[in-house]
Amino acid sequence: MNKLYQYSVISALMEGVAGKGLPLSSLLARGDHGIGTFRTMLGELIVVDGKAYQMLFGRDSARGLGQGRHRALRHDHPVPAQERHKIHPRQQGELGAMIASLFLTGRNSFVAFRIDGAFRSVQVRTVSGQSHPKEGLGELAARQPVHSLTHTRGTVVGFRSPAFLQGVSVAGLHMHFIDEKRERGGHVLSLETEGDVTIRAADVSRSVLDLPRDDTEYNDATIKVDLAAIEAAEGLLHV
Amino acid sequence: MNKLYQYSVISALMEGVAGKGLPLSSLLARGDHGIGTFRTMLGELIVVDGKAYQMLFGRDSARGLGQGRHRALRHDHPVPAQERHKIHPRQQGELGAMIASLFLTGRNSFVAFRIDGAFRSVQVRTVSGQSHPKEGLGELAARQPVHSLTHTRGTVVGFRSPAFLQGVSVAGLHMHFIDEKRERGGHVLSLETEGDVTIRAADVSRSVLDLPRDDTEYNDATIKVDLAAIEAAEGLLHV
Repeated sequence: MNKLYQYSVISALMEGVAGKGLPLSSLLARGDHGIGTFRTMLGELIVVDGKAYQMLFGRDSARGLGQGRHRALRHDHPVPAQERHKIHPRQQGELGAMIASLFLTGRNSFVAFRIDGAFRSVQVRTVSGQSHPKEGLGELAARQPVHSLTHTRGTVVGFRSPAFLQGVSVAGLHMHFIDEKRERGGHVLSLETEGDVTIRAADVSRSVLDLPRDDTEYNDATIKVDLAAIEAAEGLLHV
Repeated sequence: MNKLYQYSVISALMEGVAGKGLPLSSLLARGDHGIGTFRTMLGELIVVDGKAYQMLFGRDSARGLGQGRHRALRHDHPVPAQERHKIHPRQQGELGAMIASLFLTGRNSFVAFRIDGAFRSVQVRTVSGQSHPKEGLGELAARQPVHSLTHTRGTVVGFRSPAFLQGVSVAGLHMHFIDEKRERGGHVLSLETEGDVTIRAADVSRSVLDLPRDDTEYNDATIKVDLAAIEAAEGLLHV
């Protein structure tokens, strides 16, 4: 059975709960593809083929990370994908519809996917770290740099989550991108493919959620679900 | 690590998605205490000491269920509880505060608990089954019988879930009661203890959520989170 692993919840990041995390080695033991962020929200995490990268503009390149050197804060992982399809979506909306059409299970299960190929444009942001403890993801997202990568080849790792899980996960599409050289990328705000891309994807009906333990900042926080704030911070990628 | 298992989500019940479920044998293999309902929401489920009971007024008594004969729709289970405390809460609110005070982890983790003892009054409801397919839990709850059990001994199995999980689970306290003879009980709307009761409880930070598979009714449903409707249907037991 395909299984997804998640540490903490997006609503905790919205409240700025980001001081601790899971050792990267623990995370990588859970799966070989995923997305997330780091302690103090210092950059975007993507895991491709079992390797983790920290993406952060200002720094010129993404960094390949050794196991155990960093603490990833949040991470979803699919098991190895079941399906492979050649398709050519051009717009975000088309991509969502195509991902939905590839599966029989409708909108109430998770879909884990990976897209490889050429992209006409990928608009990404990278969170650049809290300026003070408890700064929320909403504030970080508002001042984050947004970059447009054009005519680039690379890999998207993403998830589609059911609408009723907004606040736990990010509802709809949530994708991170890294280019072929594994140098640049981030949280995808929009993308347009260039010619055919390959999508591998899998339905996922089992999810394992670990809530932080022995984490005073987490335990003391008032964590609520603010739908509008999450959409503003993460981009509105419902499909 | 304490682990909680859940099949489907409360928001699916709100939409009336209740035609299928998990075999009871699969559920009991996951743990020995829990709560839930049955296919078509025909009664309240409580699992105590590894034994499942279907509680339904109109029928005079709860039924002990053999494994595999029924399909339970939803179920949370704690691992064997870690702690045991003698306390004497009188009111719902006191109980919530006491459960919260027994643990260090605050309001953002699950607490699984069991209460044994004498109760001055326990107000319970039992859902009596959908009158037609897709009838939502809100409608069932509105016409359900509510009974007050007075001066009774018995067992409560319950969970406290984080507020940000409303819609996935029931936020706050969610408890089912069954009397000592295992004859009467239901979903707890309020309770008042009589003298000392014993509470055994455990913090739970890992949860496993199985979303229905191969279930057309589930896949086709538009499942949204309606906070007010859940509170109206399940009772407002926030702590």
